[in-house]
Amino acid sequence: MPSVIEDLRIRLAELEDLERARSLLAWDERTMMPQGGGPARSEQIATLERIRHEMLASDELGRLLEELRPHEESLPADSDEAALIRIARRDHEKARRVPADLKAEIARAASRGEHAWLEARASADFEEFLPYLERNVELKLRYSECFEAEHPYDPLLDDYEPGMTTAEASQLLEELKAGIMPLVAAVVESGNGVDDSCLYGDFPAERQERLLHELARELPLPPGTWRLDATAHPFQTAIATTDLRITTRYDERNLAGGLFALLHEAGHALYEGGVDPALERTPLGSPDSLVLHESQSRLLENQVGRNAAFWWHFYPVVQRAFPEALGGVDLRTFHRAVNKVRPSFIRVGADEVTYNLHVILRFELELELVEGVLAVSDLPEAWNERFRGYLGLEVPDDANGVLQDVHWSEGSFGYFPTYSIGNAVSGQLWEAIRAALPDLDDELAHGELGPLREWLREHVHRFGRKLSPAGVLERVVGEPIRVDPYLRYLREKVKETYGVG
Amino acid sequence: MPSVIEDLRIRLAELEDLERARSLLAWDERTMMPQGGGPARSEQIATLERIRHEMLASDELGRLLEELRPHEESLPADSDEAALIRIARRDHEKARRVPADLKAEIARAASRGEHAWLEARASADFEEFLPYLERNVELKLRYSECFEAEHPYDPLLDDYEPGMTTAEASQLLEELKAGIMPLVAAVVESGNGVDDSCLYGDFPAERQERLLHELARELPLPPGTWRLDATAHPFQTAIATTDLRITTRYDERNLAGGLFALLHEAGHALYEGGVDPALERTPLGSPDSLVLHESQSRLLENQVGRNAAFWWHFYPVVQRAFPEALGGVDLRTFHRAVNKVRPSFIRVGADEVTYNLHVILRFELELELVEGVLAVSDLPEAWNERFRGYLGLEVPDDANGVLQDVHWSEGSFGYFPTYSIGNAVSGQLWEAIRAALPDLDDELAHGELGPLREWLREHVHRFGRKLSPAGVLERVVGEPIRVDPYLRYLREKVKETYGVG
Repeated sequence: MPSVIEDLRIRLAELEDLERARSLLAWDERTMMPQGGGPARSEQIATLERIRHEMLASDELGRLLEELRPHEESLPADSDEAALIRIARRDHEKARRVPADLKAEIARAASRGEHAWLEARASADFEEFLPYLERNVELKLRYSECFEAEHPYDPLLDDYEPGMTTAEASQLLEELKAGIMPLVAAVVESGNGVDDSCLYGDFPAERQERLLHELARELPLPPGTWRLDATAHPFQTAIATTDLRITTRYDERNLAGGLFALLHEAGHALYEGGVDPALERTPLGSPDSLVLHESQSRLLENQVGRNAAFWWHFYPVVQRAFPEALGGVDLRTFHRAVNKVRPSFIRVGADEVTYNLHVILRFELELELVEGVLAVSDLPEAWNERFRGYLGLEVPDDANGVLQDVHWSEGSFGYFPTYSIGNAVSGQLWEAIRAALPDLDDELAHGELGPLREWLREHVHRFGRKLSPAGVLERVVGEPIRVDPYLRYLREKVKETYGVG
Repeated sequence: MPSVIEDLRIRLAELEDLERARSLLAWDERTMMPQGGGPARSEQIATLERIRHEMLASDELGRLLEELRPHEESLPADSDEAALIRIARRDHEKARRVPADLKAEIARAASRGEHAWLEARASADFEEFLPYLERNVELKLRYSECFEAEHPYDPLLDDYEPGMTTAEASQLLEELKAGIMPLVAAVVESGNGVDDSCLYGDFPAERQERLLHELARELPLPPGTWRLDATAHPFQTAIATTDLRITTRYDERNLAGGLFALLHEAGHALYEGGVDPALERTPLGSPDSLVLHESQSRLLENQVGRNAAFWWHFYPVVQRAFPEALGGVDLRTFHRAVNKVRPSFIRVGADEVTYNLHVILRFELELELVEGVLAVSDLPEAWNERFRGYLGLEVPDDANGVLQDVHWSEGSFGYFPTYSIGNAVSGQLWEAIRAALPDLDDELAHGELGPLREWLREHVHRFGRKLSPAGVLERVVGEPIRVDPYLRYLREKVKETYGVG
């Protein structure tokens, strides 16, 4: 089969090139593009999307995959080549179900929606955004109908977490909610205030930028393989395993926002940069499980980034950048501040514990939209009501509510649950890491993240798309996804900070 | 024919999207990309190139164009739609002649060659670069063979100046050379030194960057449609008519380099930004005559940018940026300095007059390479010898000689002659502009470039690819390309500065 598999590899490499090119266009749109480029960029992205879709769904690719079936069956199931053919077939069959025009229309609406969202968020005007959001929901429902799924949300979730069903996600998030609601209540009732005023004040963007570049250079990202830029809604994207684009934002009144966004996105970048180079330009080279992706970003942001040992090394760097604001603030105060638990409006700025309630709220609203129980126009009211129930707060305006996230503006329904399920996985991995690296606190206290990265590369990163979360966890802890380790971690943190829980 | 022409338009729009996407990948590679992204980027660009080529050369497109022949013949020849079909057919027929694999190989070799060139130039090591350059020449000869041309250089030139033959270009450049050699000799013999020491000294990159952004904002480029970045070899690229990417470079010991590179690239950007928006996403929307393109960049750089009236307004801005270096230098001294004529090594830093000898030298060497008269390995020696003959200087090393330009590293043979022929056209246009805008000096002296831009938009820019240089000149001056007006302009300038010529 050498020539057939070679032919397949060439086609798959081109599909990867198109996908990476599209990623660069999207990265540029959010970081570099002059505003005037917007309409043309939407078309350019839609065209790349459409061409890629046609190539992926093509009869020729189908025939190659069919021809390779006996070869695939002759290979060990866990070999790279078997995984390559298996995953290419999955992508092909999925693409066959969706008309190219619908794919292009979804991409175009996503790009338009994102522009509209930026403006609507700035003026806190949901009405302005409504038609774009309605269009996204409508298109995603048409997309869902292309599959014969048990639940209309299943195909959407599958785009972000291949193979996971709505029922599984619901179950995990219900368990999380049941564990977290009492924990939040305990903190609120305890009244043990934590003073986090040191994180709010005067933090000029230029100095934050210098600081975050300095911190990023100390992370275990090889020089010459990444860059860090500013954007409205931080994200990470990989143009190659050696071309990682990290973004963050600088809020001059809030130090923590940009700092933890950097750690979060750097966690994604370490994952993409850790994929076995032999998988580059194959569909195995771009991790597609967002549960695994978020387990990596959330682990760096939280288990590492809110750890006392980590700040033992890095806090003096932060202090040097802002001597006026932080010169008189000791490490213990800073560390308690970044671990403060308090219901708040914005998900990306939320503490570790309440964060999951933000996610669960979004997941539940998405389900209702998709099931047709909730009209898009009723979304702000539904958001605000549920927010009151879960977080006990009155949402002041839609910019602090339903308009805060980019996801829905670009039609990303099914993405949110992966954040909290990723949190759960990060809890399982963290217990395994703690056991495997007994000196980790010591290393973090010296700013050495190398051993941690090596563990993650060996057990998670290098596999790229070859292993699902279940596959990774099976090898590491011999169990499926479970929420208990993560809940134990949160309870311990709350106990440590508040003496309750 | 409504549905056939609509089908054609959709396909052509996609081809444009692919081309603009490729431009963005190339822009990013030279301005933003972490070094590690290089190998993957070469593949990504080659893939976009290959897909575009296949679509352009496809039987389906050929059939559409065939079907549209009667419709085309029924339209006025100068209508947008007739031009669209005619130019699409030209592109299609040209693409049919070149195998997709060869196109992709050329693109890949171009990207690899550029990386190799950057390193070779840094170490002034031609040997390191030789295999890449040999590969580029070999591939371009194979490319040329795909056409049945009178001269092997014709198809290469045609890529940069559609329809122009090697014989025509040779004739024009011979005439230029005959006019310029005595002019340079007169200046050198006159011994009338011009003091340009004010342009050399200590010009920190950060302050140059601030200054050039300030100047760029005063040029008639609409806000929100452009950006300016630093790169090794300045260039301009348009991702849309409203998304223009200008680049320059900052040499801390030389103020003029970055300043005139900005004006040059801004001239290109004004052209691309001035194309009729109705032509966007059609093959008419991207100007492809580099003679016209260079006529625009060279006009802004020279006829405008070395004009006393222009500096009447802008010099105080430059002085404010560098008070230590320029506070005591008056306008007349500065203006004479930027008009100094002196043989020098680097083309992009050359004065207006000797510049053309740099170009003619490259054109002649390209011809010899393509004709097989000169081996690539003998290029440095041939360069140095001819340089001595034309410019009277001994080239000290290859970084100041054969390695200075990016063009050959990316396989761009046939590009260079368009610079000087563009100069000739800028001379014709400038005479017409002078006659049409009697108050131009006054306007420039107030920093008002709007009327100039409007003239250029009306007579050159808006047509995009619809008109060739001959078509533009026919409308404006009723003549074909001629070198006399440009030579008159140069003689006048030399007379003004040196009192000779």
